Formats: sequence, C-alpha cells, structure tokens
Amino acid sequence: MSLPIPDHVIIEEEALRDGLQNENRLFSTEEKLSLVQALIGAGIKRIQVGSFVHPKWVPQMADTDELFRRLPRKTGVTYTALVLNKKGLERAIACGVEHLSMSVSASETHSRKNTNCSTEEAWTRIESLIRNAKDHGIIVRAGVMTAFGCAYEGKIPPERVYRLVERYTALNVDEINLADTAGLGNPRLVHDIVKKAKDIAGSIPISLHLHDTRGMGLANLLSGLTAGATIFDACLGGLGGCPFIPNAAGNIATEDAAFMLSEMGIETGIDVSSLCSVTRALEKTLSRKLPGRLAGLPSSTCSAETPS
Amino acid sequence: MSLPIPDHVIIEEEALRDGLQNENRLFSTEEKLSLVQALIGAGIKRIQVGSFVHPKWVPQMADTDELFRRLPRKTGVTYTALVLNKKGLERAIACGVEHLSMSVSASETHSRKNTNCSTEEAWTRIESLIRNAKDHGIIVRAGVMTAFGCAYEGKIPPERVYRLVERYTALNVDEINLADTAGLGNPRLVHDIVKKAKDIAGSIPISLHLHDTRGMGLANLLSGLTAGATIFDACLGGLGGCPFIPNAAGNIATEDAAFMLSEMGIETGIDVSSLCSVTRALEKTLSRKLPGRLAGLPSSTCSAETPS
Repeated sequence: MSLPIPDHVIIEEEALRDGLQNENRLFSTEEKLSLVQALIGAGIKRIQVGSFVHPKWVPQMADTDELFRRLPRKTGVTYTALVLNKKGLERAIACGVEHLSMSVSASETHSRKNTNCSTEEAWTRIESLIRNAKDHGIIVRAGVMTAFGCAYEGKIPPERVYRLVERYTALNVDEINLADTAGLGNPRLVHDIVKKAKDIAGSIPISLHLHDTRGMGLANLLSGLTAGATIFDACLGGLGGCPFIPNAAGNIATEDAAFMLSEMGIETGIDVSSLCSVTRALEKTLSRKLPGRLAGLPSSTCSAETPS
Repeated sequence: MSLPIPDHVIIEEEALRDGLQNENRLFSTEEKLSLVQALIGAGIKRIQVGSFVHPKWVPQMADTDELFRRLPRKTGVTYTALVLNKKGLERAIACGVEHLSMSVSASETHSRKNTNCSTEEAWTRIESLIRNAKDHGIIVRAGVMTAFGCAYEGKIPPERVYRLVERYTALNVDEINLADTAGLGNPRLVHDIVKKAKDIAGSIPISLHLHDTRGMGLANLLSGLTAGATIFDACLGGLGGCPFIPNAAGNIATEDAAFMLSEMGIETGIDVSSLCSVTRALEKTLSRKLPGRLAGLPSSTCSAETPS
C-alpha cells in the first residue's frame, strides 16, 4: 500500500502574525506589505496577516486594521487574521475581513494563563464569536490550542480535544485547526488525534499548526498528512517561538515544508526557490539566521532532478 | 487505523565511522575508546566503529584494527565495521569481527566515482565478499548506496534498487541496508522503496541509512518505519556529511531520532538525556555546534511528561 497522501495541500503562512509578534523589532506597515507581496510572488495562497488584539498586549500587531485596508487584492489569495474577542471581531468586520481564525485551549492551565479564563468560559466566548462571524458571512477556522501537549500541564487527554472538535463540528465551522502550541507532539500522537478528529469532523477540513521545537516538525506534518490533514500552518524560515530558548525553533519553516511536499509530488503552488530568497531577505532584515534548513543550502541541493 | 509501527527498533551509531571520517581532526584510539564507552553508557546497542579501508584513503580509520582489539566486551552490544574489499575482509577476520557492513551503489556514476568500478564489477566483488564473510560465521549487513537518489545521476530507477535487494535476498544476507547517501530521499519515495524491498526480502530485516541534508531526515525515518524498516543508522549530534556546504547536516542525529521514537512509545534502549551529554562533550572536542537539535535544548524541553 502506498502512503495515503492527497494531491495538493494548502499552506497558511504565519510569518506576519505568529512570526513577527515574537520579534522585538517592530515592522512598519510598509514592510509588512512588501513581505506580503513577496510571499504572494512566491506562490503563497493563504496568509495570516495579523491579529485584532489590543495593541497594548501585542504592539507588533497594532497596525492590523490599516494593513488589511491596504492589502493588494489578488485572485486565489486568502488573507486571514486572528481574533480573540468581540471587540476584535468588530474590528475585523469593519475591515471587511473574509476569513478568520479563533481558538480555545484544550488545557485548563494554558487557557487561564493565555486568556485569563477557564476553558468553559473560553468556550462560551468563542461560540458566540463563531456564530457572529458566520452571520457576517466570514469563513471561520476554529482551533484547539495545546492539542498535543501543554507547556504547563504536560500530556493533554485526547478526549478534551475530541470534545472541542465535536462542538466545532456542531457549529459547522469551515475548518478545524489543531495546534501543537508548545511543540510537544510526536508523530504517533499527531496521527491518532488527527485521524479521530477527522472521523468526528466529517467533511470539515482539519488543519495543523506545528512547531519544530524538538526537530519533529516535518515528521509531525507527514504524520498528520497521512492521517488526513490537508492544511498546514508554516512560517517563513521557521520564524516564531521563543527567542530565549537557545536553538529553539518556531513554526515549521514554510520553504522546508513546501519542498518536502513538492518532492512527494504534492502540489502547494509554492515556488520553493523564490520563497528561499524571501527568507534570506528577512534574515538580512533581522540580522540573524533563521532556523529553517533550506534557505541556507546551495540552490542545487533543493532539486533532486538536477543535482550538482 | 493506528500508525503501523513496531515496539522497538535498533539504532546503529555511525559517529565513529561516517562521522569521524569527515573530520579533519584525527581522533586517537584512546579518544575513540572513550567515545565507545560513553555511547554504551547511554544505551547504544550497535556501533559501527570503523572501516577496514586503506589508511592512505581514509587516515581517520587507520586504527580500526587496533580499535577492534581493544573494544570493551559488553553483552548486548554489537560492534560492526565497513569493509570494501578482500583485503579489508581479511583484516576484519583477523580482528575477530562478528558483524560487518558492505555495500554497492545503485548508481553507475556513483559506483565509478566512489569505488572505481562499474555496478556489475562491484556486484561480483561484493558477492564474493558476502560468501567469504558468511563462511567465517560473520553476520553480514549488505547495503545499497544511493538507493533514494544520486548526487551525480539524480533520480535512481527503483528497479535497480529492487534488483540488488533480490540478489542480496538470494545470498541470504542477515540485513539489507538502504542508504540515502546524498540525502535526496523524500518520505513518499522512502515509503515506496522500503515497502517493496520488504516484500522482496521477506524475513530479512531492512535498515535505513539517512542523511538530514534537506531537513527531512526524521520524516524519512518515520516513513521508513511505517513501511517496515526496523533498524536505523544515526550519528551523534548529526555528525557527518560535507563540512564545505554551509548548514548541511550529516546523518540524522542519534539523540533526535531516539527521542522521537521514545516519544512514540518505541523502545531503543537509549537514554536520550545521557546521549545529549555525550553530544555536548563531542561538540566541545570539535569546538563547534553540531546540527542535531536536541542536545542544544534545555533538558526540560526533552520531556513531554514534566515540561517546565
């Protein structure tokens, strides 16, 4: 039996949100717009450009409203953003956002630390957000944070994840995202949870948000892929994560993920070589090497067809 | 359906051979013996300690005979070495080696560049070596180099690999190793080739030798594992590979592979935390950071049970 894999997958680029929100350097709206143009030029089809969160908490995302108003309209490209609460959703609606992400945590402790409310309070909040967003015709991706482990609680009983997937399915969201928020997942766990989530969600696509903290990012992607996930978050150069952990990686690197998928004959629409140039430009701006592998290799290494 | 994975796998440590032969610094026999002790202390069960090759070609391996004579005898630990020709086999027999690796290439060009003979000449040579070694009661692992792609020829028709697996199976070797010599494999290709090789080889175990050049090492391991491979080569810290390619990695890092397997509930006998200490000591000796991920992370990151 061959590996059960799809013909194509969607990669959602997270550099502008999960990536830049972890940087001390504040990127101007113009810089963000240039990055968006470069990403689209490399074939990226979905970009999370920011979050509608209070600027006091995440100053890097303060220009999300302005950014949305100035984004280039491109056929086939989806812009999305993160909303955490009613106020954020109102801002998103005012900006005419067509696609949104919203999440709750499967971990009680993480929920309280991250959003200052219990998982049940968080559920009440997101349920209302989802209904409200859908009433406005917005495509809703609903997520489960700490789905594969929690930095505070350790292992998370999968039943907690499945319960949330059931609830999201009942609300008929457009996509269910399972997030390895702390990078604690392993391929076996990812496979089991994605498989079961897919059984519950039926025709609603399952997406994965993976961090490469312990070097298993691409293995987890592969595992989720064979279990039926068809949408993957990734971050240019593997940006994101905690800058205070030595050698800690952030999200899986978009170019590394796109290259592996392309080598497997799976279409992403991404030109890996162009995307590596975008990563190298970003490394120059940030004055540091990013953790992704491919952008630092000689270009001949990235082709199995005509190796040097 | 759960991920089809075994309860335990064997990791063959390659640091002393594939690792050190790529280093300019010559390690003394005493240093190698200390490394062997440290590896055994961390639970490594099989070590390729050197190669019986002419010292003119690989001076780093010149002490392989002496090293073998001085290795500590430990129950449950297998020492192995690489032999390339009749002279090497004679040396190995004289040292009382009980387990040997020998290989031919699936690529005509690589065969000529690497061993100065055609694939058919190489076959004639290895067939005789295998018979000779088996006559001396030696356990023989027979390998296919460039099984997943060649740095000179690019893609390798899988039929060439299968033909060699058939020939090895007919010779009743004890293990068949498929090597991603240039790190060009992808999870789909690895899965397909391992699956078919396993069908051909029957009860003869399939092992994989993977390089992490393009960041897909652990994904390829996972893919080979689910296709039925049960033995994996790895190298402390991801040593090996070409020091002249910036950011190029060598073999998959033993500690990273062992950790992923352990997180998946697969037994390797390795104490990952101890092995990370061995890697950090080697980094000190080499005065550089090795490409493996885990040894550079805070130890709390390496446990999903009790994260900080």
